[in-house]
Amino acid sequence: MADTDLSFEVWAAARAARVEHALERLLPAGDVVPVRLHEAMRYAVLGGGKRVRPLLVYAAGEFACAPLAALDAAACALECIHAYSLVHDDMPCMDDDILRRGKPTVHVAYGEATAMLVGDALQALAFDALASTLAHGVAAPAVVGMVGRLARAAGSLGMAGGQAIDLAAVGAMLDAPALRGMHERKTGALLAASVALGAACGRVTDADHDRLEGYARAIGLAFQVVDDILDVVGDAASLGKTAGKDADHGKPTYVSVLGLEPSRTLAAELLAQAREAVAALGPGARRLGDIAELIVTRHS
Amino acid sequence: MADTDLSFEVWAAARAARVEHALERLLPAGDVVPVRLHEAMRYAVLGGGKRVRPLLVYAAGEFACAPLAALDAAACALECIHAYSLVHDDMPCMDDDILRRGKPTVHVAYGEATAMLVGDALQALAFDALASTLAHGVAAPAVVGMVGRLARAAGSLGMAGGQAIDLAAVGAMLDAPALRGMHERKTGALLAASVALGAACGRVTDADHDRLEGYARAIGLAFQVVDDILDVVGDAASLGKTAGKDADHGKPTYVSVLGLEPSRTLAAELLAQAREAVAALGPGARRLGDIAELIVTRHS
Repeated sequence: MADTDLSFEVWAAARAARVEHALERLLPAGDVVPVRLHEAMRYAVLGGGKRVRPLLVYAAGEFACAPLAALDAAACALECIHAYSLVHDDMPCMDDDILRRGKPTVHVAYGEATAMLVGDALQALAFDALASTLAHGVAAPAVVGMVGRLARAAGSLGMAGGQAIDLAAVGAMLDAPALRGMHERKTGALLAASVALGAACGRVTDADHDRLEGYARAIGLAFQVVDDILDVVGDAASLGKTAGKDADHGKPTYVSVLGLEPSRTLAAELLAQAREAVAALGPGARRLGDIAELIVTRHS
Repeated sequence: MADTDLSFEVWAAARAARVEHALERLLPAGDVVPVRLHEAMRYAVLGGGKRVRPLLVYAAGEFACAPLAALDAAACALECIHAYSLVHDDMPCMDDDILRRGKPTVHVAYGEATAMLVGDALQALAFDALASTLAHGVAAPAVVGMVGRLARAAGSLGMAGGQAIDLAAVGAMLDAPALRGMHERKTGALLAASVALGAACGRVTDADHDRLEGYARAIGLAFQVVDDILDVVGDAASLGKTAGKDADHGKPTYVSVLGLEPSRTLAAELLAQAREAVAALGPGARRLGDIAELIVTRHS
C-alpha cells in the first residue's frame, strides 16, 4: 500500500516514529561524556510532544518529492530548536514552569545550569543536523539556504525575538495586530520554517512556494489562537500543564484581546485559508491539510 | 604597502576594526523591535574583547587566500558564538559574575530573561552569518562543512560540553589529562574552529590542513593555561574581572593541578609547538605565529 493511501493517523504515527528514531541516533548517548548533559538533552527531546514541526517537514517534503533521509534530518533540526526553546522558556528567569508534558521540567530534574546548557547545545545540534542533509541528497546551495532560514526563524527577528516581546508584554495591553506580530515571531516563524525546510529538501515551483508560505502563515497563527483558547477552556490533565497559566501571568492572549467566540471564529477562518492553499497545491498536499485540521481541532 | 608588510599590531588593529564594523552591520540596530533585546545583543558584542577568534579567522583565511568579505562573515560567526557563551556563563545559575570587560554583565544591565535570550539569539545569528559566506565567494559545500564544524565546536561535544564538565568539576580533583579534556572542549574547540573556518573560506593542501589543526590544538590549550596563570598572578584592573576567581570557586586550574612554574613551562612548550607548525606552513602563516605569541605573552 502506498504511503498516500494511509489514513492520516497511520501516516502521522509512522512519521512521529521516524523522527523519534532519528532523534535517538542524533543525540549523543546518555553514557557519552559529559554524561549528565547528554542525559538531560535526551530527557528534553525524546518521548514527548506532538511533533507538529516534524510532521510539517515531512508533509511539505513529501509534497516536494524530497528524500526521506533528508527530511529526517531537517525534522530533527526543527524539533531540537523547538525543544531548546521549551527548556529555556520553562526556566525560573522566564516562565518558571515546573511541569512540561506531564513531567518535571529540565531545570527541575537537572538543575538550572544544566538546563541552560541543554538549550544551548540543542540549538547547536539543530544546525549540525541540518548540515547533514547534504549527505542525504539535498544540493549544497539549498542546504545553505535552509541554514539561513532556520537561523532567522530562531533568532532575534524570529522565535527569540517573539519571546522578548512576550516578556515585555506581561501586564501590558496589546491590540490584535501587536499580538499577531508577537506570535508570528514566537511560534509562527518556526512553524513556517518547518514547511519551508521540508519543501527545500525537494523541489517546488515558485507558485507552489508562495502557496506553501500562505499555508504556513495561516497555520502558524491558528496554532497560537487555539493554544490561547485551550489555555482558557482546556484541563490540566490533557494539556500536561497548568490551564489558565497565561491569563494568570497577565499575558495578553487572543482570548483576552478578542474574546473567546471571536477567537474561535478567527481559528475557523485561518483553517479555511489553510484549506484553500492546500486545495491550490493539489492532492500531493493532503497531509498539510490534515495537519491544519489537527492543529485547529486538537484538545491539548 | 602590501598587508604582509604591516607590523602585527597594525594588521591586528585593522582586522579588529573590520570585524567590529561587520558586527555593527550584522547585529540588528538598537531601534529595531524587540528594541531591548537588540540593544542588549549590541551591548554584549560590540566595543569589547581582544577579538582573538576573529584574528585567527583572518590569519588562517589570508594564509588560504580567502576572500576578505567571507572572512568578515566567518569572523562575526565565531565572535557571536563566543559572546553568547560569555553572556550565559556570567548568569547567576552559572558563574554569577557581575563584571565583564570592566562593564556590568548583560544580566546585570538588562535582567536575566533578556540575557538568556541574548545568548540564544546570538547563537542563531552566528549561523546566519556563516550561511552568508555563500554570497562572498565560498563554495556551497564548503559553507555546509563550516556550519557542521561550528555547530560541533559549540555543542555538547565542544564548548557547551566543556562548560558542563567544568560545572561538574567544581570542588573535584581532576588530573592533568582530565583538565586538558575539559579545556579542549571549553575553549579549544572554538579556537580550533576559528582556524578551520578561516582556512575553509579559501584553499589549503591536505598537509597544510593538518599543520593548521596542530597549530590550533597548541594555541587552544596554551590560551587556557595562560588564562589560569593570569587568574593567579594577574590583577583585576588589567583582567577586567576578579583575579583569583576560579581558584576561589574551587575550580581545578592548570596552576592548581600542575603548579605555577610547570604551567609556565607548559605554555612555553605549546608556544614552541605552534611556532613549529607555523614554520612548516611557510611565510604566509606569519600572522598565525604572531597570534600564538600574543596568546602566550598577554597580560590580560
